[in-house]
Amino acid sequence: MGVIPAAELRAAVAAQRDLAAMLFDRLRADGLDEPGVSRDPYGPGEQRAHATIAQAATRLSLEIQRDAAANLYMTMAGRDRIAPSIVLGSHLDSVPHGGNFDGAAGVVAGLVAVASLRRLGIVPACDVTVMGIRAEESIWFQVSYIGSRGALGVLPDGALDVRRIDTGRTLAEHIADCGGDPSALRAGQRHLDPARLRAYLELHIEQAPSLVEAGKPIAICTGIPGNIRYPEVRIEGSHDHVGLPRRFRRDAAMAGADFAMQLEQLWEATEARGIPMACTIGRFHTDPKMHGMTIVPGTFCFSLDVRAYDEAVLAELDREVDGIISDIEHKRGVRFHRGVKARAAVGSVDPQIRAALVSSAAALCIPAIELGSPASHDAAAFAAAGVLSAMIFVRNENGSHNPSEAMTIEDFLDGAAVLTDWLARAVGQ
Amino acid sequence: MGVIPAAELRAAVAAQRDLAAMLFDRLRADGLDEPGVSRDPYGPGEQRAHATIAQAATRLSLEIQRDAAANLYMTMAGRDRIAPSIVLGSHLDSVPHGGNFDGAAGVVAGLVAVASLRRLGIVPACDVTVMGIRAEESIWFQVSYIGSRGALGVLPDGALDVRRIDTGRTLAEHIADCGGDPSALRAGQRHLDPARLRAYLELHIEQAPSLVEAGKPIAICTGIPGNIRYPEVRIEGSHDHVGLPRRFRRDAAMAGADFAMQLEQLWEATEARGIPMACTIGRFHTDPKMHGMTIVPGTFCFSLDVRAYDEAVLAELDREVDGIISDIEHKRGVRFHRGVKARAAVGSVDPQIRAALVSSAAALCIPAIELGSPASHDAAAFAAAGVLSAMIFVRNENGSHNPSEAMTIEDFLDGAAVLTDWLARAVGQ
Repeated sequence: MGVIPAAELRAAVAAQRDLAAMLFDRLRADGLDEPGVSRDPYGPGEQRAHATIAQAATRLSLEIQRDAAANLYMTMAGRDRIAPSIVLGSHLDSVPHGGNFDGAAGVVAGLVAVASLRRLGIVPACDVTVMGIRAEESIWFQVSYIGSRGALGVLPDGALDVRRIDTGRTLAEHIADCGGDPSALRAGQRHLDPARLRAYLELHIEQAPSLVEAGKPIAICTGIPGNIRYPEVRIEGSHDHVGLPRRFRRDAAMAGADFAMQLEQLWEATEARGIPMACTIGRFHTDPKMHGMTIVPGTFCFSLDVRAYDEAVLAELDREVDGIISDIEHKRGVRFHRGVKARAAVGSVDPQIRAALVSSAAALCIPAIELGSPASHDAAAFAAAGVLSAMIFVRNENGSHNPSEAMTIEDFLDGAAVLTDWLARAVGQ
Repeated sequence: MGVIPAAELRAAVAAQRDLAAMLFDRLRADGLDEPGVSRDPYGPGEQRAHATIAQAATRLSLEIQRDAAANLYMTMAGRDRIAPSIVLGSHLDSVPHGGNFDGAAGVVAGLVAVASLRRLGIVPACDVTVMGIRAEESIWFQVSYIGSRGALGVLPDGALDVRRIDTGRTLAEHIADCGGDPSALRAGQRHLDPARLRAYLELHIEQAPSLVEAGKPIAICTGIPGNIRYPEVRIEGSHDHVGLPRRFRRDAAMAGADFAMQLEQLWEATEARGIPMACTIGRFHTDPKMHGMTIVPGTFCFSLDVRAYDEAVLAELDREVDGIISDIEHKRGVRFHRGVKARAAVGSVDPQIRAALVSSAAALCIPAIELGSPASHDAAAFAAAGVLSAMIFVRNENGSHNPSEAMTIEDFLDGAAVLTDWLARAVGQ
């Protein structure tokens, strides 16, 4: 079988429009928690989404499996059932009061791709599995990629014992509630062997407005950022009277402000060198137990997330942060206590799949740009495990992690068409 | 009667050393609330201090009076009981877990001065009243100078109805508990008529380490700063995903950091022009209900206190703050909501009394510098009411409003000697 003509491929995908629209409506109703949707991982919200997706997969006659982490696998059998398989997926959980598309769009796109393949009469060369991944959002358990890392047998030590921020129950308890097997996870059992996987592809809404700005429906991902995180940095200075002259002050809040501004300058300078990165100081605050209008702040706390697409850049940024801290400690007579340091590896995108996705978009006349991922994704966990990985981003208004995220069905189908075209080329011959 | 020889005056004051030491010990025991002392205004801590001071005044055969605000007046009768009188005083309350000397030192100094006068055999030309003032510290009721403004009949509207931050009871209730008469205060009755006062003098510990740095025991005050306060400024930007590129962000915390740094630059530039001032951003924080490590902060709050010794300078600084805010709003796509603006007038020191205090220090060979007050004081309320006012600061280690404040009895007696010398010259002839 040769390459499918563009018009035929687009028609096959367009025929799945009702399926996709129905699934998005159903998922929204399942997770409704005004404002927005809450698909709480290993809780009722995520459970309902898994049930809805599994039911749709059954209607598509896909084989259903679940693993010890309660991930959902929906497989279209290949001609060679032993050959390394392809996984198309994303996560089905959301942040509290989040939007309907963050995560779910990638699972629906996987179903659209296999349904389109079937409509085109293609029996794939290898198994193609759509994966509904559990618990990607780190806000709930303060651990990211729980489902994907659980599937790959690389959950970090202690993860099963962390407690969900709202229920206070452990991840192990939550997994057991949903039919998973925490003891198997504890023993390091894995459902997915990277050596048995040919590739992992994930479609996801863009979590920044770069595509809106560019006026294009989709982007091919060039890389998933790694990060360095300091969840709780504390600056210690001296609490003093409001009238204290400047030369005597050891103002911890001013030290924090100085740090933020120097970090911003570092960001500007790095981008000016053509190196993409991002820094976020999400928590940035005086001590509510001590602060007051007439007290020079003696303590100050902040969190720091620094992300970039290259391990060497991340290491350099970490050294630069050290330098900024030393400068401020010296200049302002304060001490920075950095606390715990967390790291996530850069998720590299396979250059061949990336180039093939660019070619597919061109062949289908779908305008696309190439774009570094603003956010972290399960694809980074697959890439870290040695699986060839790639991502497609779909235009999305109003950012993500909020009820206002907005993706049109047309843009979604453009993304799904590129995914399907790549899949057809990869498994159709 | 001519000028008292320096040695004789110093000996008379030195003879009060035991009285002063006993009173400071008794006051510390009365207010003990480890760490430090808590003399809560119109509460048990302040009440005990008033009782201790009143008892000492009775032993000194001073006339005791109390007014509607429950201030304590301890009068040494003058030869002419109708002539405008002199008030020596300070406040007897403290911040929670504060030091023993902030406020109380000025009341003890007043008692030392009249006791020294008596030892010198001086019957003053006019009444000399030592005043134990109520509720100066604004932290409790969020209103400053309650006692002194109550005495002068100029309590701000609504002050009697504010609630103490810890008890939740109104100022009126607290005053009534302590034997005061809130209805008389509500009617604007005053105990002190500025036209019937010759001068108000206040000794106070220095609340900055300028005297420690200068190596001198005392300072003559050149002025009490006025201030402009914004208790609660809110910056509104946009809560966004951690991966959002810089050009799309409307980061409220970065706007706050930018403001703080520009304000510091303004402070540096103003001081470089030889104009003393101070700025404090005491509260400086992201929203604890919304902030998180992976969220770009969309809201940010801070308090601002700007102080200077000249009304024109204060007005100029307020305009400069406007300019900084406009610049940041424009540059960062955020909005500043300034909220309530509070003002306190500059407290001017009478130049003649100030010069006389400098002369007294020189005559007594007590090293002194001239110094702008770092902090606000009851003297500012007297000055605002048209009373000729002046202050003496005493060297103090470790700042104030904390348990570690430290004043030696020697330095205190140096300050009390200058106060007594001035008093003897003013009323002894």
